Amino acid sequence: MGYRGEDVIRDYIDRFSNWGRWGADDELGALNFVGPAQVVAAAQLVRQGKLVSMTLPYDLLGPQAGGFRANPLNMMTATGTDYVAGHQDPLPAGWGPAHGFGYADDVLVMPNQAGTQWDGLSHIFYEGKMYNGHDAAQVTAKGAKRCGIEVMCDRLVMRGVLLDVARQHGVDALEPGYAITPDDLDATAAAQGVEVRTGDCVIVRTGMLGERRGNWGDYSGGSAPGMSLHTAPWLAAHEVAAMATDTWGLEVRPNEIELFQPLHVVALVHMGLPFGEIWDLEAIGTDCAADGVYEFLLSAAALPITGACGSPLNAIAVK
Amino acid sequence: MGYRGEDVIRDYIDRFSNWGRWGADDELGALNFVGPAQVVAAAQLVRQGKLVSMTLPYDLLGPQAGGFRANPLNMMTATGTDYVAGHQDPLPAGWGPAHGFGYADDVLVMPNQAGTQWDGLSHIFYEGKMYNGHDAAQVTAKGAKRCGIEVMCDRLVMRGVLLDVARQHGVDALEPGYAITPDDLDATAAAQGVEVRTGDCVIVRTGMLGERRGNWGDYSGGSAPGMSLHTAPWLAAHEVAAMATDTWGLEVRPNEIELFQPLHVVALVHMGLPFGEIWDLEAIGTDCAADGVYEFLLSAAALPITGACGSPLNAIAVK
Amino acid sequence: MGYRGEDVIRDYIDRFSNWGRWGADDELGALNFVGPAQVVAAAQLVRQGKLVSMTLPYDLLGPQAGGFRANPLNMMTATGTDYVAGHQDPLPAGWGPAHGFGYADDVLVMPNQAGTQWDGLSHIFYEGKMYNGHDAAQVTAKGAKRCGIEVMCDRLVMRGVLLDVARQHGVDALEPGYAITPDDLDATAAAQGVEVRTGDCVIVRTGMLGERRGNWGDYSGGSAPGMSLHTAPWLAAHEVAAMATDTWGLEVRPNEIELFQPLHVVALVHMGLPFGEIWDLEAIGTDCAADGVYEFLLSAAALPITGACGSPLNAIAVK
Amino acid sequence: MGYRGEDVIRDYIDRFSNWGRWGADDELGALNFVGPAQVVAAAQLVRQGKLVSMTLPYDLLGPQAGGFRANPLNMMTATGTDYVAGHQDPLPAGWGPAHGFGYADDVLVMPNQAGTQWDGLSHIFYEGKMYNGHDAAQVTAKGAKRCGIEVMCDRLVMRGVLLDVARQHGVDALEPGYAITPDDLDATAAAQGVEVRTGDCVIVRTGMLGERRGNWGDYSGGSAPGMSLHTAPWLAAHEVAAMATDTWGLEVRPNEIELFQPLHVVALVHMGLPFGEIWDLEAIGTDCAADGVYEFLLSAAALPITGACGSPLNAIAVK
Repeated sequence: MGYRGEDVIRDYIDRFSNWGRWGADDELGALNFVGPAQVVAAAQLVRQGKLVSMTLPYDLLGPQAGGFRANPLNMMTATGTDYVAGHQDPLPAGWGPAHGFGYADDVLVMPNQAGTQWDGLSHIFYEGKMYNGHDAAQVTAKGAKRCGIEVMCDRLVMRGVLLDVARQHGVDALEPGYAITPDDLDATAAAQGVEVRTGDCVIVRTGMLGERRGNWGDYSGGSAPGMSLHTAPWLAAHEVAAMATDTWGLEVRPNEIELFQPLHVVALVHMGLPFGEIWDLEAIGTDCAADGVYEFLLSAAALPITGACGSPLNAIAVK
Repeated sequence: MGYRGEDVIRDYIDRFSNWGRWGADDELGALNFVGPAQVVAAAQLVRQGKLVSMTLPYDLLGPQAGGFRANPLNMMTATGTDYVAGHQDPLPAGWGPAHGFGYADDVLVMPNQAGTQWDGLSHIFYEGKMYNGHDAAQVTAKGAKRCGIEVMCDRLVMRGVLLDVARQHGVDALEPGYAITPDDLDATAAAQGVEVRTGDCVIVRTGMLGERRGNWGDYSGGSAPGMSLHTAPWLAAHEVAAMATDTWGLEVRPNEIELFQPLHVVALVHMGLPFGEIWDLEAIGTDCAADGVYEFLLSAAALPITGACGSPLNAIAVK
Repeated sequence: MGYRGEDVIRDYIDRFSNWGRWGADDELGALNFVGPAQVVAAAQLVRQGKLVSMTLPYDLLGPQAGGFRANPLNMMTATGTDYVAGHQDPLPAGWGPAHGFGYADDVLVMPNQAGTQWDGLSHIFYEGKMYNGHDAAQVTAKGAKRCGIEVMCDRLVMRGVLLDVARQHGVDALEPGYAITPDDLDATAAAQGVEVRTGDCVIVRTGMLGERRGNWGDYSGGSAPGMSLHTAPWLAAHEVAAMATDTWGLEVRPNEIELFQPLHVVALVHMGLPFGEIWDLEAIGTDCAADGVYEFLLSAAALPITGACGSPLNAIAVK
Repeated sequence: MGYRGEDVIRDYIDRFSNWGRWGADDELGALNFVGPAQVVAAAQLVRQGKLVSMTLPYDLLGPQAGGFRANPLNMMTATGTDYVAGHQDPLPAGWGPAHGFGYADDVLVMPNQAGTQWDGLSHIFYEGKMYNGHDAAQVTAKGAKRCGIEVMCDRLVMRGVLLDVARQHGVDALEPGYAITPDDLDATAAAQGVEVRTGDCVIVRTGMLGERRGNWGDYSGGSAPGMSLHTAPWLAAHEVAAMATDTWGLEVRPNEIELFQPLHVVALVHMGLPFGEIWDLEAIGTDCAADGVYEFLLSAAALPITGACGSPLNAIAVK
């Protein structure tokens, strides 16, 4: 193929790939780092009984600018205004007179990756393969036959660690194009007094979502601060199980080499980490700065949408 | 109005309504029973580090028979088959040559209450009002201006208790039309050695979902076992915060009085309990029978879909 | 109420309203002007056997900027790439081995008024009523019970007349804010040698769509040239049955009085004219200029979407 | 490959394929038979000024039983009930006070082939190819790059001929499994006194839709009367341009040979005929029987949905 940086990619893949590590059929990837001990330890972090959501509301005010990844559209198929105008009496389906009863109902049309999301392991391919060498052609118009997001249905309640790199840099938001390095991560963890452990979800705040909220411009798809490709060794060394940021694509844009989204190739495709994107880290950033606690039980289950390549979620930090 | 059973409804509303209890503006209802102490206690239930999902996969094999509540439809806007056929090189959006990179993406079309779901407090009305006296006409074609599901974004991680009434009765599934009584709930709790406490989510297994899986018939909308209207005093006495079953409508069908879904009117509209419906309780039922532990940390966050009357969710029992 | 221009509105409504003209139950409005004689005469205009479409392709390159009226999204549920990769053999539904057979299929998600469209008579209300005095509250979350677009299922094949006002003005496109007057219409018709007759669809070219194509900016919802409110008497005098332009809202924006879209109020609500919007009149404009023929059989059937307030359509001029 | 009937398929393809007939790049297929003379002649059939729609309303009462081809779902994003309840004053988007103005709007979610439809030439493949030898892999998750339905945007206003085979047989509806033969077509045309000519759309009534309306059962996907594979020579001899029936799949089911939908393979893939399916021929059947006129101008334009494999349409017979 031959592109600038291919040697780095090949080196990282050689050194850090988890293909085969958990068996030839594995579809869970780095989530295998989260065993019972990690779950129990994560639950023990709950001391204040406080919940903080890291999910942007799903609605037309979201960050998408159009195209197939339009913002979520929730449409009402029954409303209170219809009810008060008398249109629900008698009830439908032969259910008889309403006697004062009424209802509202709705239908959601939403690209799974339009807002706060998990990228599943069937979302990205490299050289014909997804995670663990599963054939990319297993992802058809009927969905992913391997590594669909539903395989994670019993996962993603785990330890979460916020690394507030923006705050560590003393800025509201890192600049687009800023590549977050392993040194940034280590310095932030040290300053915050928190340690990254096997099976963690590492959540990195750039501040970009807070800066762009309501005036998104090219937030989705444009230049962004984000994880450097060269955090791959750090992610491997710490046996990180999942990772999330408050940007559209997690890694720094423009990319550092000629390959598009190279950290996706190394860390999602080869190491098997689900990537969380467009997480809203403003409230949790403020909260952690206030109480000095940067670790928590993370409740971040994906919806088991059969064959989907990603999922919306309500990511909640429980302290 | 005048219907058979209206006196019971008015009596239960008089005695158990929580309107105003947490302020005139409250939109959270019985979830107010879940305070920091309850969250911390719930987390302390995690001893084995085991996760069990109670959510049915979201796909076309779901329980809906058509109509506006069709089963979830996940559609692919990019596939691995396209990628291997060469259609993603060059990449879109001016991102240049692919160098082996590929991707899949998808869009979900889903009635929020088609599968495993939360009914939010804007889903049901009685005599012109939703929970806390908010005007039903606040729910328009643009969504719910009050009691939209997004107000629960920082909630629904709590203590869960499974009451396996089917197993207590020694049957695979209770019969359609069987009304689960307070005595059933008490006897089941006693036999299981578990206690229902303030702020719990009470999860009641009828066995119906397991019996109908894959051959749904009139599962959605038809006759069903479920909670009796007369569990309302029990729910109030125990300060239950939320409730879920493995049936389409939580309460017994046909209803016990002439009002449609009267427990919705009492418990959802007036007491402010979110109702979980179509939860898949087969795996958790088996698991609890095996280890004898019927209480757990329940991770059951709703998606913060602005103005929605309900939400899909991945309900996970963490033991 | 009291707003600038209310006197004009009331005067026009008094003089030109067709409410009751075709019976108290009528839902067809000015399309009643199109009788058998008009249809036969329209067909006799077909002399060259030439078809010209006036519909913009329905796709993500359309004029919408986001929001609930996103551009049309067509999603594939079966593809040729899946087929060639072997995923359709055996066939689904127990249809056995493929023996070389394959298929593609798709699902459209589309706001009815996102692209080239008809506004039906249930689309606009004034003072609580739609066309013919039907109660606005007949349009619920279940759709329009009166004046749904499906009532026009046997209509809209009729005589069409193009009035190319832009060309008459010698410009590529009229300026935003330019109000097309009755004099403009008469001068254009005279210059083109065409006459407007009872039951016609009058199609007015401003040139704006051609100018904005592919770089839409505020085309949808912004300032635009268009029909003056004061064309109402002209539309009445000519017994026009329907009207269309190449702009998002047919009438001039900003409006000439304080009422929003006042010609909709007079001509759609009270006279009963369906309004065609976002028609692509570039090809037909060129064609008519070339052959000097500005009248044709217009094939412009709406889809009979039950209860819809508008419809996409493929408007074809047949000469 | 080797299947029962393969010899017949190969023979029909050899004898009747139109691949290359209108150039190597052609995407219009048999619609090329419709030239200016045919269009003019078709228009001259309009003598009574009567319009009869052959399209089933698009709504939840349609013939689909679920799955990805669910029935059309039209959802309201603004309603008259909201308007009368005061929710549209002030207007959105900064448009100021309503002064009595209101509106309704809607979004359609619809499989293109859920109801009355055209199959485009990218809908079916055989041995890796679609019509004219275009590679099936040109139909991706982004849509059809060749033979998308939009290539027919300036077509499908043409001569239509109804052959009411059910009436000719003296039955309300032909039986499922009945294969309509060339003799049936000839006898019906002779009895009706109508002639099939080059460039016609032949519309064949089986009566099945009328029989199943409202109680669809297995109408979609089940056994059905329909065109025999052996009508292929007849279609070729008459230079038919398009064909439609009132069944879900046009041809007889079960099929006459081991290949699934073999007439699709011969006539759609190789001869290039668009297939109309689920047309509602009850009204036109009654009308033609009454006036004895079985030929008409057919207004049956497809929506130009870019890259779609099919399209809804309002097919209108104009007499």
